[in-house]
Amino acid sequence: MRIAFLGLGRMGLPMASNLLAAGHDVVVYNRTRSRAEPLESEGARVAGSPAEAAEDVELLVTMLADDAAVEHTVLGASGALATLPEGSIHLSMSTISTALSRRLGREHAAAGQAYVAAPVFGRPEAAASAELWVLAAGAPEAIDRARPVMEALGQGVIELGEEPETANLVKVAGNFLLSSMLEGLAEAFALVRKNGVDPELFLEIVNGRLFRSPIYEGYGGLIARGSYEPAGFALKLGLKDTRLVLAAADESEVPMPAASVVRDRYLTGMARGLGELDWSGLGRIAAEDAGLDGQAEDRRGHAAPLRE
Amino acid sequence: MRIAFLGLGRMGLPMASNLLAAGHDVVVYNRTRSRAEPLESEGARVAGSPAEAAEDVELLVTMLADDAAVEHTVLGASGALATLPEGSIHLSMSTISTALSRRLGREHAAAGQAYVAAPVFGRPEAAASAELWVLAAGAPEAIDRARPVMEALGQGVIELGEEPETANLVKVAGNFLLSSMLEGLAEAFALVRKNGVDPELFLEIVNGRLFRSPIYEGYGGLIARGSYEPAGFALKLGLKDTRLVLAAADESEVPMPAASVVRDRYLTGMARGLGELDWSGLGRIAAEDAGLDGQAEDRRGHAAPLRE
Amino acid sequence: MRIAFLGLGRMGLPMASNLLAAGHDVVVYNRTRSRAEPLESEGARVAGSPAEAAEDVELLVTMLADDAAVEHTVLGASGALATLPEGSIHLSMSTISTALSRRLGREHAAAGQAYVAAPVFGRPEAAASAELWVLAAGAPEAIDRARPVMEALGQGVIELGEEPETANLVKVAGNFLLSSMLEGLAEAFALVRKNGVDPELFLEIVNGRLFRSPIYEGYGGLIARGSYEPAGFALKLGLKDTRLVLAAADESEVPMPAASVVRDRYLTGMARGLGELDWSGLGRIAAEDAGLDGQAEDRRGHAAPLRE
Amino acid sequence: MRIAFLGLGRMGLPMASNLLAAGHDVVVYNRTRSRAEPLESEGARVAGSPAEAAEDVELLVTMLADDAAVEHTVLGASGALATLPEGSIHLSMSTISTALSRRLGREHAAAGQAYVAAPVFGRPEAAASAELWVLAAGAPEAIDRARPVMEALGQGVIELGEEPETANLVKVAGNFLLSSMLEGLAEAFALVRKNGVDPELFLEIVNGRLFRSPIYEGYGGLIARGSYEPAGFALKLGLKDTRLVLAAADESEVPMPAASVVRDRYLTGMARGLGELDWSGLGRIAAEDAGLDGQAEDRRGHAAPLRE
Repeated sequence: MRIAFLGLGRMGLPMASNLLAAGHDVVVYNRTRSRAEPLESEGARVAGSPAEAAEDVELLVTMLADDAAVEHTVLGASGALATLPEGSIHLSMSTISTALSRRLGREHAAAGQAYVAAPVFGRPEAAASAELWVLAAGAPEAIDRARPVMEALGQGVIELGEEPETANLVKVAGNFLLSSMLEGLAEAFALVRKNGVDPELFLEIVNGRLFRSPIYEGYGGLIARGSYEPAGFALKLGLKDTRLVLAAADESEVPMPAASVVRDRYLTGMARGLGELDWSGLGRIAAEDAGLDGQAEDRRGHAAPLRE
Repeated sequence: MRIAFLGLGRMGLPMASNLLAAGHDVVVYNRTRSRAEPLESEGARVAGSPAEAAEDVELLVTMLADDAAVEHTVLGASGALATLPEGSIHLSMSTISTALSRRLGREHAAAGQAYVAAPVFGRPEAAASAELWVLAAGAPEAIDRARPVMEALGQGVIELGEEPETANLVKVAGNFLLSSMLEGLAEAFALVRKNGVDPELFLEIVNGRLFRSPIYEGYGGLIARGSYEPAGFALKLGLKDTRLVLAAADESEVPMPAASVVRDRYLTGMARGLGELDWSGLGRIAAEDAGLDGQAEDRRGHAAPLRE
Repeated sequence: MRIAFLGLGRMGLPMASNLLAAGHDVVVYNRTRSRAEPLESEGARVAGSPAEAAEDVELLVTMLADDAAVEHTVLGASGALATLPEGSIHLSMSTISTALSRRLGREHAAAGQAYVAAPVFGRPEAAASAELWVLAAGAPEAIDRARPVMEALGQGVIELGEEPETANLVKVAGNFLLSSMLEGLAEAFALVRKNGVDPELFLEIVNGRLFRSPIYEGYGGLIARGSYEPAGFALKLGLKDTRLVLAAADESEVPMPAASVVRDRYLTGMARGLGELDWSGLGRIAAEDAGLDGQAEDRRGHAAPLRE
Repeated sequence: MRIAFLGLGRMGLPMASNLLAAGHDVVVYNRTRSRAEPLESEGARVAGSPAEAAEDVELLVTMLADDAAVEHTVLGASGALATLPEGSIHLSMSTISTALSRRLGREHAAAGQAYVAAPVFGRPEAAASAELWVLAAGAPEAIDRARPVMEALGQGVIELGEEPETANLVKVAGNFLLSSMLEGLAEAFALVRKNGVDPELFLEIVNGRLFRSPIYEGYGGLIARGSYEPAGFALKLGLKDTRLVLAAADESEVPMPAASVVRDRYLTGMARGLGELDWSGLGRIAAEDAGLDGQAEDRRGHAAPLRE
């Protein structure tokens, strides 16, 4: 398949590489051109603009940072929409707002192009190992044509109907659940740490006996150890995604007070210069607001080890 | 072991029964005496007051509804503290405040008795099948003596040091994490339902692909189906436990905004007469506040089934 | 002065009328043309488009509903910016986002035009009686030229420096203080009403003895009486302005948890179909969430009258 | 009138002094006896315990720090209830919980004594100048007998019916409105300061043009100047009163999300060691959370002065 791939960030780069490995004919574009170089040796062509990349392809993949980047890259002056052939598909994998996704659907339809929203769950390592989960919404026929590409990128495609923005909604609702979990853990750890409980033991109890979730295990461990760098997914991106879920909630008139709490905590983090921490850095904010140092000490030598 | 067991509610009754089955010599007391009758046929003696029950036992177990009940039953006019022999142990398994637990520790010490806080994780079914998790804190020697009893009631004992209230703190912090999860799910489901997404499919995505937690699976299913009756654990008890975690947070000066949100939602539920719903009834409150009927429709016939 | 006036809503119509009465030469435009008719008899010319209105004027006034309307009317296809003469001034009086105000400043500068942000405090009656307060920010020279127009519309002009968006920020911060007061009153009234206190007496105490503010008196009275219709300023506009203050807070990284609470309450109101109530309808939402009917009964016959 | 006055703190001392000046026969008690000395020269007798003070008086006034102090002083081992003559009145002026007030009503009734709840609005200066506002609830006959005393302490008595706890409820609801105003101002000032607006000018606009309230003027000025010491009313007492309003809200099942926000902010203040600041120190917390220094700079030399 002839594919244009726009956006070679921490997610996009390994994804484009997987498409090359799967034998697709891929032209790539990235604002900072040097990011594209490693892919040249894998067989990619490098375009000088989104419009140039989209000429003559069957499928356009975008994996960009935010609404502004997608708007600029697809709808801007030298954007991809103008040159994408009629009948081709835009597979839009970025985490963007439902409003922009709806608008892209309209604009592509007006240009005789198909639009499939296909945001993903998974971090850069999952992108590299093609273990993403893809949420796909759009015309069934377009989803079917794009399926081989989605399958080359992940371990499964979950279909969410014909309205593209539904996939974006589910993506941001899922990320909200993660943020909400992080805030819950952040507050609980601040409370127990301030009362002298070994955070590792607390995690062993609440995840080992209650949640039994690899996600709680992973993030709980980061907060228990106060280990927020390097970021797997940055706090500033957590804020971005919280904005998106609140925008969707606003549009559909759904009050989300827990999401509001999370937003205010992320903003506090930004104001404290913590935007580059991992989003589990909510643990540090809650700790500081409780008068603890943000960093959990290693109390393992001091407190009761886990005895059952 | 000669044991007095006070409080034969939904948790206490099967627990006392398990102690009898394990061969202990058990005298029971319950405010409503008729609740004690089934245990008589299992070999229990029934006392007319807490004080009468506690005479001459080695171990006193309390499993009562709240602080007021424990205060009355242990410290009140005909309470157990007055008659519990010196050197005996009070194994306090109710979910009570850290403040009351601390006070009980002091009062028992003054009376030459030992005090072990031993709240549990698990619902009535787990109590029946002796699969509770017991959090124990107090003097190591007392914990060791009480261990056979705790082991007869659950699948493990987790020790939390010498300060009894630490066990109560960890218990309410754990329940807060559950409440916080429920509120997160409640908001996310309200959002996606209002946007036409099949709630069962949403759960399949967020738990199946992200959290992979039996707890999310279970409670998520209740919210997805709007199935809040009969209550496993009532909303009014969720409120009670949220009060306890907020009281502990207040005492130790830890702001917990997510806990505050949960509290206000539970209070809304109480004001709407929903106190007897399961605590996952937070899902109904969030749905109603979003202008949805509280009950999720069965959309399984209408929306896209899970296809991967 | 030759003036174009765009937007003849509840605020704009009396304002345009005042400019005509002050002897200015006014051309008006409104999307729904019939709204402009009353002004024709007062001497206004009616234009068929924003672009047509702006031709050849010294000053362009906009008084429109929201960002989208301003964007469309000024920057859109037949928008005013294209025809406004070089050296003329855009006096932007709508309550819009700081982001759009900043952008308008840039675009006008690029077109050789001046831009003054001049949002106002005051309701339609104050617009009619020329008693608005005008917050003005922009180039001092442009403010000076626009001053006679601003003075014809209100009782004073408050200058806020050279950055236009500062005036918009102060406007939305002021409206936030009003929303925050409304939410405070809403909660306090729900609490005292549910405990049998006469709301009028409560208001007499808290405003009569504490705040002594005509604003508390007016809005407190609406909430005390449950009198939310007709709206002086609609709840849905309260939500709009709360969005604006949260957007400004987000941009400048300032957590505003009280604003988040207000936002969630307004959204609840929208979801309940209460968007056309007065924004003091927050009182009804708080009352309903407390299990009271939204309407305060008239308790004046029943409870203790004010005796001192 | 023969009066016992218990509690000679910043409020109680000048109040007792006013009663002496009004010609009453006053016996005083304070835990720290030295606080009572200045009153001896004014004619007061000093008792060694609450019980001793209450012997043989017609009226018992309590003005103590919190529930615990009132409970201890009135109901404790050498408390006043035991010796207060039958038919005498307890005028309870402290800011205490509705629950304790209800209980005191019951206990005094059982002892054949009258109980009038009579909390006050006003700060120490108003206590000194006898300008407090007294909220009175209880049996009308008892209120009438106590009226001369209440009138000697303030500028008016507002009656709130026969249930004593109603007066306490109105008191804490009023203080909540003040806390809520402080939080609103705190957030608004943080927002405008971070955007370069002179805080004094902002206050001049929002209070001078909108609220026109001496309370907004006073507290707004403290926040604008970052002037939180010495405290008129300490932040830790703001937290105490917020606890009381939330307890009343909990009892009567009224969700109060704005009160929850205030509580979490006060707790943050406590955790940061700011409990002795004035409660308007919420302004410092909001500023710090916005990444500003807590202290407002004096910008009066730099920003636009107020020009109209």
